[in-house]
Amino acid sequence: MSEQLTEEITGEQIAAGKRAYELDREHVFHSWQAQGPFTPMTILKTEGSYVWDGEGNKLIDLSSQLVNTNIGHQHPKVIAAIQEQAGKIATIAPQHVNEARSEAARLVAKHTPGELNKIFFTNGGADAVEHAVRMARVHTGKHKVLSAYRSYHGGTHLAVNITGDPRRFASDHASDGVVHFFPAYPYRSYFNSTTPEEETQRALKHLEDTILLEGPGTIAAIILESIPGTAGIYLPPPGYLQGVRELTKKHGIVYIADEVMAGFGRSGEWFAVNHFDVVPDLMTFAKGVNSGYVPLGGVAISPEIFETFRENAYPGGLTYSGHPLACAATVATITAMEDEGMVENAKRLGEEIIGPRLAQFAADHPSVGEVRGTGVFWAIELVKNRETREPLAAYGGSSPQMNQVIGAAKKAGLLPFANFNRLHVVPAMNIEDEVLIEALDRLEQALIVADSFVE
Amino acid sequence: MSEQLTEEITGEQIAAGKRAYELDREHVFHSWQAQGPFTPMTILKTEGSYVWDGEGNKLIDLSSQLVNTNIGHQHPKVIAAIQEQAGKIATIAPQHVNEARSEAARLVAKHTPGELNKIFFTNGGADAVEHAVRMARVHTGKHKVLSAYRSYHGGTHLAVNITGDPRRFASDHASDGVVHFFPAYPYRSYFNSTTPEEETQRALKHLEDTILLEGPGTIAAIILESIPGTAGIYLPPPGYLQGVRELTKKHGIVYIADEVMAGFGRSGEWFAVNHFDVVPDLMTFAKGVNSGYVPLGGVAISPEIFETFRENAYPGGLTYSGHPLACAATVATITAMEDEGMVENAKRLGEEIIGPRLAQFAADHPSVGEVRGTGVFWAIELVKNRETREPLAAYGGSSPQMNQVIGAAKKAGLLPFANFNRLHVVPAMNIEDEVLIEALDRLEQALIVADSFVE
Repeated sequence: MSEQLTEEITGEQIAAGKRAYELDREHVFHSWQAQGPFTPMTILKTEGSYVWDGEGNKLIDLSSQLVNTNIGHQHPKVIAAIQEQAGKIATIAPQHVNEARSEAARLVAKHTPGELNKIFFTNGGADAVEHAVRMARVHTGKHKVLSAYRSYHGGTHLAVNITGDPRRFASDHASDGVVHFFPAYPYRSYFNSTTPEEETQRALKHLEDTILLEGPGTIAAIILESIPGTAGIYLPPPGYLQGVRELTKKHGIVYIADEVMAGFGRSGEWFAVNHFDVVPDLMTFAKGVNSGYVPLGGVAISPEIFETFRENAYPGGLTYSGHPLACAATVATITAMEDEGMVENAKRLGEEIIGPRLAQFAADHPSVGEVRGTGVFWAIELVKNRETREPLAAYGGSSPQMNQVIGAAKKAGLLPFANFNRLHVVPAMNIEDEVLIEALDRLEQALIVADSFVE
Repeated sequence: MSEQLTEEITGEQIAAGKRAYELDREHVFHSWQAQGPFTPMTILKTEGSYVWDGEGNKLIDLSSQLVNTNIGHQHPKVIAAIQEQAGKIATIAPQHVNEARSEAARLVAKHTPGELNKIFFTNGGADAVEHAVRMARVHTGKHKVLSAYRSYHGGTHLAVNITGDPRRFASDHASDGVVHFFPAYPYRSYFNSTTPEEETQRALKHLEDTILLEGPGTIAAIILESIPGTAGIYLPPPGYLQGVRELTKKHGIVYIADEVMAGFGRSGEWFAVNHFDVVPDLMTFAKGVNSGYVPLGGVAISPEIFETFRENAYPGGLTYSGHPLACAATVATITAMEDEGMVENAKRLGEEIIGPRLAQFAADHPSVGEVRGTGVFWAIELVKNRETREPLAAYGGSSPQMNQVIGAAKKAGLLPFANFNRLHVVPAMNIEDEVLIEALDRLEQALIVADSFVE
């Protein structure tokens, strides 16, 4: 592929990349991988919506890495803020007051819905979920947590047990007071629904049945991704989240909205709950809060739950809670999102470019079972057969066919995001229109490959 | 205290600090605190072994924050490395190869004992512990984890359940296959020992009894802080850790050494296990790895455990695993530690300055029950009575007396580290001799206050 070598990458950088690859294979243990056969891609450079691989190929980043670089790569204002804060105070213990942390909390609270004005900072999404559950348990004095199948809530023990996708299986000893219920998922309804409205009604009935049979008095919290992310970007049908909010109020259950992936503009609103006019009791965030430039996550807390910890110590914490460098990146990120209208832009991109083009994909390509999404948060479900909806890779697995589809996307010059039988379209909120259009043109090459597997 | 206002701090900075304090009280939810009455200290500036509080007072940092700034504050080479990496690639997903991550893994592996050459990066110490336990569970196919009372292993659900100090109580449902055993702790022996040798022998007998009664075939791992940190910096008596290593080998149990606080030079060796010529199967780290300048933790993995994940996927991960900015800070930190002989210096400070001075404290001050430590990792146990060893604050709590002692240390110009009835002496490894001597002079003011409570 040396003919694709761009002028941006030097031979020296490529040599350094090769050395990095060797050291990686010698010393780096990777997330979620079988370490032996793993052949990772080297990234030499990143900028805006582009990344350059180890051979110097310039790829359009349609993944936002792990759906976290919502403002794209190397946003100059955020990079400058990190550099400036590093020169000032890189780190400080969580028990001290720090200017960057105070300002980050103010700006997060400014955008959270309702009165979720108290912010507990963590290192990422998993520990945000861990701490939100703890707050709910201490607040209610109850232990059980209800969460949905086909969800992801993080990789630590409690978070991965709450998770509803196969990533929890190896760690699941059913030992943590976690109860899973079936989500509202119109395309693959667990309730034999034929319309979204029916799905909402039946899924809510199922959830309340679960609450009643588990015992409302035993349940601390229900946790739900406002729009499930890696699990499929399947939007809640009309009225579902409102119904969940009503059920939790009715039964005295804390409602935790997990906005780790959907939050901070990804869905075309600051938070995905805003689409549904729902205000949860606790809301977890990470990723988009500073695009992952510096590790950060957190929990936004309602006044009622804050009251529980006004006079009684919160029994949790971490060394890097409210880390100044991460908080300075957050201040600059939110400011850039505001100043550059990025959330509105994400909405526009979804409505004017991605949505219509994906609808066209669905019309033109028999491998496309369903397209769905909002903002810069979209999924394409690939199927072998539109009637049976048989997926191109089984739930929880990959397939030679999907691997060929993903390979075609890479070959076309994309860094794609795939999960099981799905391709996700999750670019930065500020991707240029023409780059996005080009990326979707390239993605169509992969769909042509997918079409060849339709039975 | 305005007379202590130093020339380094401007009136403008103090005003900004006041604004930060107000925003903090309005929006920041703090670790481990009752949020209402909490009156945190503002930190306006940090440099080397100094911090400046909200009124401009220059304090000697004897806490290293949460015992993490092993190289002191704002080390210029590490700050420069963070700034440089931010300008290059701030973030990249864990599945890609990145130069900073590869080099950080190489340098961590260079200093780990034995063949712990594969490095899994996390965001901090808690998730390092979570993942180490998961590796042990998958590797052995067993579920139980044995850990010591009077230990701390992190704030997430599993980590805090493994923890053996009161911080776990609010989250402890005894539901996670966690079994606690009694540690070797000569000063407050749980085995009625009268000598360290006896303590070692009895504590090991107790541990093996626990293993046999729990069933060796049910136990995945034993996790142990090589030198327990916040729980008391109580050094394992001679032969104890070697004995633990032998027991784990004999019974086929994974030995996890938690070096989150003790590691990376704090004890005067790169890792505290080095004092005892012990090589664990898994070793967790965080804090000192880059002094917390950017959030990072990790697990160093033995070849045997790596083999388990060569062909089978490791069922865990996180978005910021091997974060480039954190890894670049690590590369610069380890390099600075090597180039400036910081680990050797920590050893010397312990042997030549802290150890002798604390021994003098023990001789001169009736409130000092015991002093113990190594490197820049020391504890002073304050007691009401040397005979009964009654602590100046009960286990798990504070007391008006301890609050006065801590207040005296602050008033003398220190940022101290206290836990229950103990003052810890945990400065940076590169604190200047004269600053350290001055800090210990100031600390003695607090001991004079403590003496007044001796009964």
